[in-house]
Amino acid sequence: MNTNRQWTLAKRPFGMVGPDNFEYRETPIPTPGDGEVLVRNLYLSFDPTQRGWMEDRESYMPPVQLDEPMRAGSVGQVAESNHPDFNTGELVQTLGNWQDFVVVKPAQGLPGLTKLPPGVDPELMLSVLGTTGLTAYWGLLDLGNPQSGETVLVSGAAGATGSVAGQIARIKGCRVVGIAGGPDKCAWLTDEARFDGAIDYKSEDVDARIGELCPNRVDVFFDNVGGGILEAALNHINMRARVVLCGGISSYNATEPVPGPANLMNLVINRARMEGFIIIDYFDRMAQAANDLMGWIQSGELIYQNDIQEGFENIPQTLTRLFTGQNRGKQLLKIADPS
Amino acid sequence: MNTNRQWTLAKRPFGMVGPDNFEYRETPIPTPGDGEVLVRNLYLSFDPTQRGWMEDRESYMPPVQLDEPMRAGSVGQVAESNHPDFNTGELVQTLGNWQDFVVVKPAQGLPGLTKLPPGVDPELMLSVLGTTGLTAYWGLLDLGNPQSGETVLVSGAAGATGSVAGQIARIKGCRVVGIAGGPDKCAWLTDEARFDGAIDYKSEDVDARIGELCPNRVDVFFDNVGGGILEAALNHINMRARVVLCGGISSYNATEPVPGPANLMNLVINRARMEGFIIIDYFDRMAQAANDLMGWIQSGELIYQNDIQEGFENIPQTLTRLFTGQNRGKQLLKIADPS
Repeated sequence: MNTNRQWTLAKRPFGMVGPDNFEYRETPIPTPGDGEVLVRNLYLSFDPTQRGWMEDRESYMPPVQLDEPMRAGSVGQVAESNHPDFNTGELVQTLGNWQDFVVVKPAQGLPGLTKLPPGVDPELMLSVLGTTGLTAYWGLLDLGNPQSGETVLVSGAAGATGSVAGQIARIKGCRVVGIAGGPDKCAWLTDEARFDGAIDYKSEDVDARIGELCPNRVDVFFDNVGGGILEAALNHINMRARVVLCGGISSYNATEPVPGPANLMNLVINRARMEGFIIIDYFDRMAQAANDLMGWIQSGELIYQNDIQEGFENIPQTLTRLFTGQNRGKQLLKIADPS
Repeated sequence: MNTNRQWTLAKRPFGMVGPDNFEYRETPIPTPGDGEVLVRNLYLSFDPTQRGWMEDRESYMPPVQLDEPMRAGSVGQVAESNHPDFNTGELVQTLGNWQDFVVVKPAQGLPGLTKLPPGVDPELMLSVLGTTGLTAYWGLLDLGNPQSGETVLVSGAAGATGSVAGQIARIKGCRVVGIAGGPDKCAWLTDEARFDGAIDYKSEDVDARIGELCPNRVDVFFDNVGGGILEAALNHINMRARVVLCGGISSYNATEPVPGPANLMNLVINRARMEGFIIIDYFDRMAQAANDLMGWIQSGELIYQNDIQEGFENIPQTLTRLFTGQNRGKQLLKIADPS
């Protein structure tokens, strides 16, 4: 291989993101400068937040620029290193973009360059032990603060983040109910991930089912969806409930503003709180989370699903899978095996 | 006087509350039992939250029942006492309802029976030193936690609660901008209450004006209004902003659910919090608030407006004034002078 394949952002999306927002091109393999590392991407992470990065607006990270390779988390292998801490062949995690090769200057900005711990494979590093798992861990525990015996409701519950958040709540002694799309996902939640209940938003009355499955009301709502799901959940919050705003995937591809919940006064009546967070603020506390998560995986208390697509040519349509609900757990794409 | 005049809830409101929701009747003056006190109401308090009490739904207090006198805060005078702590002629605050006389059992439930401190007149007791002022004080300080140099935005800013919240923020060293309806209220905010800026939502582009008047963005938004005002404010929140949900008067008289803000994701991007509260949770900390508020009034740092209507027959239409914006500051109605 002597070219650096890329998928660049060709056109900002209006409505549902799709392959026509991206353009394929081949460029020369970049050369690392002093103190820099050349990484060959092996696995790409797909995350709903990428949809926001494609918009030309202020956010927690600058927008991806047109004609630049699309930004994405990745695990790769050091191909060439001008940095004393990194050696050729080592597996590393970074923000590698949709391309074969990326030049990274370690310790310069987020998320830098992190070596995979021993025994952690690329798939695990990009899912439960990566940003996804950290998001579930810190969002639930720091903002949600679930107490044993409380009821925790999770939307997008079969997704990469939601499924981990719900299981952590179960590990912490909570009653856990998940909302997901379709009978397969719901069966996975109750049968495999051991949620106490699951609601299929595609075929059930979410509001009524929350009432049935959460007889003591909802103490923590971990929301990945927003819109009507958030409104339904707010009808069932308990006194001093915590609504953890992790994401709002229901509106990410909307062409017009999607109205928010009409029942925010329920926050007043119930002295409840709704709070947002971005996981980059927790990177300095990554070790504690990774340690707990790894322990729960090893003890069998925490399971996860990775949905691994393959082939560089399939990158754009793999992103769309997140927004059509096709993904089963964490969406990844494998570009190549380690050499 | 040998009858107890009452305005009862005759019909639950649909849409704007008005006199036809109430019915006038005359009943015998009730007799206090053992340990009870008969209070003659002199002043009634009018509060937006009363609109919620008229709905037949679960809330932080039970709904007012049909054919019962409408619930309201009041200051009255002890007319007859079978309780050792209260003497005939003393001025007291209670939930007296829309009637001349109420029987209260002190220390039984909220808000009990509180004597007016020396030097505090009925008007002050029902405004800055009453539930209204406490709401502003604890909502702003406990939930909003404003720091010197931060920017505090207040909606319903010329109202009884908003005007106090904004002035407390100014006293705490914040830049304070208020949103109110009409040039008179806005002039009062900047000229009398010494807000740093005022926005007339009836004639100005609220979103644009917040941007102009809050160049460092909004750290605390004290919201009494909800709806489009809340959405506009969320466009300008700062990192780690606190949105204090005090009320949502814009939707209280709506006949259909009013959509919430379409931009709740701004809470995520800015790691911001939106939280509701009910002042009854703070009654045990009333003394601290009253002490501070009284001090600021005496030093001239805190001013207030009381809008005092008169006449028992005008009670129902006085409530409507709150929702049409006719009130100037705290809405009260005087039934009678102390004897």
